Amino acid sequence: MKESVSGCPMEDAMRLLGGRWRIVLIYYLLDGTRRFSELRRLMPGISQRMLTLDLRALEEAGFVSRTIHPEVPVRVEYALTEEGHRLRAVVDALGEFGERWAERRQRQAAAA
Amino acid sequence: MKESVSGCPMEDAMRLLGGRWRIVLIYYLLDGTRRFSELRRLMPGISQRMLTLDLRALEEAGFVSRTIHPEVPVRVEYALTEEGHRLRAVVDALGEFGERWAERRQRQAAAA
Repeated sequence: MKESVSGCPMEDAMRLLGGRWRIVLIYYLLDGTRRFSELRRLMPGISQRMLTLDLRALEEAGFVSRTIHPEVPVRVEYALTEEGHRLRAVVDALGEFGERWAERRQRQAAAA
Repeated sequence: MKESVSGCPMEDAMRLLGGRWRIVLIYYLLDGTRRFSELRRLMPGISQRMLTLDLRALEEAGFVSRTIHPEVPVRVEYALTEEGHRLRAVVDALGEFGERWAERRQRQAAAA
């Protein structure tokens, strides 16, 4: 029987990774370094403000690194840290579930 | 190279499972049927209103079933559906990550 203690690792992880976009952000950064504009193009549903806040939260937690290239215009790149890459198993499990769930819903819609 | 299409299975899954508590809720329901009061005790950080809304959203999506026992006082029980049980791999991966992450943070705090 699972007992909840306030310091529940699952709750702590979801306190950081909860929200619609953070795990999706990790998903796109698993491929490698990305620029802000690229992430916005890949995630059309997210606002500029939300993307900024989510990237900052992931950076503060040590999952994402931000590199500023002093060029004109300045170039800012985001990448996963070693800690961030440890989220691959969570992202893979969620992606797998998401795809199966989408297939089941499509079958149900077709059968309706 | 991953391209985002609006119907991205990952985004769809996180649109439902995002937020601080929903995956934690699935975690506690994986053990079996639970009553509302039990879930509130296991998750001291969640408000009654948030728990009600999250359970309703998971029920509408077909992940949770709600059974009302016509007793006095009425007894309401929540359980995972077959679809809900398919989230076990996501919950396990997140629990595993959460525990390792907690250990690393404790080691870093001890070394500081």
